[in-house]
Amino acid sequence: MVLYVDAPRMREWIGERGVEPIIVDLVERMEQAFSRWLDFEREPRVASHSKHGVIELMPTSDGVHYAFKYVNGHPSNPAMGLQTVAGFGVYADVATGYPLMVAEMNLLTALRTAATSAMAARYLARPDSRVLALIGTGSQSEFQTLAMRAIIGVDSVRIWDVDGAAMDKYERNMAGFGVDIYRATSADDAAAGADIITTCTADKTNATVLTDAAVRPGVHLNAIGGDCPGKTELDAETLHRARIFVEHEPQTRIEGEIQQVPATHPVEALWRVVAGEIPGRTDDAEITLFDSVGFAIEDFVALAYVRDDVTGTRFAGELDLITSPADPKDLFSLIAAPALTHTRR
Amino acid sequence: MVLYVDAPRMREWIGERGVEPIIVDLVERMEQAFSRWLDFEREPRVASHSKHGVIELMPTSDGVHYAFKYVNGHPSNPAMGLQTVAGFGVYADVATGYPLMVAEMNLLTALRTAATSAMAARYLARPDSRVLALIGTGSQSEFQTLAMRAIIGVDSVRIWDVDGAAMDKYERNMAGFGVDIYRATSADDAAAGADIITTCTADKTNATVLTDAAVRPGVHLNAIGGDCPGKTELDAETLHRARIFVEHEPQTRIEGEIQQVPATHPVEALWRVVAGEIPGRTDDAEITLFDSVGFAIEDFVALAYVRDDVTGTRFAGELDLITSPADPKDLFSLIAAPALTHTRR
Repeated sequence: MVLYVDAPRMREWIGERGVEPIIVDLVERMEQAFSRWLDFEREPRVASHSKHGVIELMPTSDGVHYAFKYVNGHPSNPAMGLQTVAGFGVYADVATGYPLMVAEMNLLTALRTAATSAMAARYLARPDSRVLALIGTGSQSEFQTLAMRAIIGVDSVRIWDVDGAAMDKYERNMAGFGVDIYRATSADDAAAGADIITTCTADKTNATVLTDAAVRPGVHLNAIGGDCPGKTELDAETLHRARIFVEHEPQTRIEGEIQQVPATHPVEALWRVVAGEIPGRTDDAEITLFDSVGFAIEDFVALAYVRDDVTGTRFAGELDLITSPADPKDLFSLIAAPALTHTRR
Repeated sequence: MVLYVDAPRMREWIGERGVEPIIVDLVERMEQAFSRWLDFEREPRVASHSKHGVIELMPTSDGVHYAFKYVNGHPSNPAMGLQTVAGFGVYADVATGYPLMVAEMNLLTALRTAATSAMAARYLARPDSRVLALIGTGSQSEFQTLAMRAIIGVDSVRIWDVDGAAMDKYERNMAGFGVDIYRATSADDAAAGADIITTCTADKTNATVLTDAAVRPGVHLNAIGGDCPGKTELDAETLHRARIFVEHEPQTRIEGEIQQVPATHPVEALWRVVAGEIPGRTDDAEITLFDSVGFAIEDFVALAYVRDDVTGTRFAGELDLITSPADPKDLFSLIAAPALTHTRR
């Protein structure tokens, strides 16, 4: 039997465990994984492009477990009431090749993305950071807020979205969490005075959602909305002022903010910072940028955590997905009897 | 909701519909797909190798639908009572990127492999072929037999396996199907007088399960057991005497019998034969070889067929795998209420 965490179970599991406690655990596991980055396979994601969007498979393995995420990106989906991005994941045993778990990965991706952002901020933001600017208050925004609160101690958020209804939604969802919310009049207004600026818009083009002038010395930028070819959020000028940190450089060169600069533009690997090989932030005036596009290892960590946490609980369903005859050579015996009568001549 | 055909439903569906009727339909659809081969994405499978075996993802798309198979290959699994190869598949909608179906793919792979073999034999075997030799009577053997009977009219089978119990199993499973079975004393004895020779052994090395001397003029060889690097079944001499047909040449060069010959050795694309671009068998003395390793397009065809056939029937279960908030920007609202109380400060 394959363990199964469907959408309702994922919702209930998150409800029971709490967003912030999950993110605290995920950051701890994410740090462990980033510290042993080279243990993992680091293949580029496998993309199938169409005029409608993209469907991707994101596999990785650490030699003990294997995981992949199926994820799409379809900008026109919301007009049909569907998610731009939808996904599910599979976690498997390397020794037998058998799948161990199938799980929902829309909510789980939101959690792992927020956890990765917060982990990066722990190494790259000023230690006294308390004010977060959110440019874009879509699906990721509440998760980013709670992650930055749980890991960094952010207690004040300045929000901006070109869609006023999205800001209403954010304010509604965050009411009662004890976070001070300032509703800005522009992206630059939101960024003013922020210690950490997270850009998480759904712009489909090489947009500039934040002017370079709004990026002040000492700020940490967390750019997560630019995550596919032809889609960026920052002013190219900002890239020349910042120390840039990436997940898997070959993928980020294609999908990240650094699409805007030559392939020789220097970037640093976030995992080396987490592993203690290179410094994170070195002074209070530095501008740091985590150019995040999402990588398979982060999904692996999230799936491993869910499996460990839900096994033996009511959040773990079962799928009878793999046919297993008693004699491995006798697959045919498993076909129900009518097949035989039906085909006998 | 995602349509779901688990292992019990797949067994029952095959039982209800019958192996041969399914294979007849699959061959028809396989011919349609091979005739429009260039409409499909033809990426190599994405493999994750370990000391234990391999886990692969096999994706393809025709621009309307997308499918992938998850499949492993673990030679030491049978010693643990597990299948050497286990798999499942996903069929998805290119326009939205949403998965449409998750299905068992051990039994389904056996059916699609047998259907592909029979389709190849239709173009490559002598039209009067009635005698099949089976070298290897493992998981594939009964499916191969029924496919060759349904499509080619084979009525006599000569079997050989180094494991006598596997031959017992084959004879037991095929009793009552009206096929004449001759239990040979060696692979060469099985091949004697056969019109079609199918090699489907589980040898893990560059083995020779059939001597070149046993391959007589006019025979069609269907080599399906050699399907990964370092695993072949035929005498290299035989490759120099045969016209060789392949699925996707770049993959077969790595995984097929033609690993044994230089990369310049001529091979022909089976799809071009099916599409009428090049001839299949041209005379009764020719030796033809289908060097089959299995390709993603065959899995696509099988998944598409299952979906069309089971939709609206008792064989179609449902998975609530994809989280879908009413407002696509409001993923956070889906988290069950306890999360909010739990994390409020």
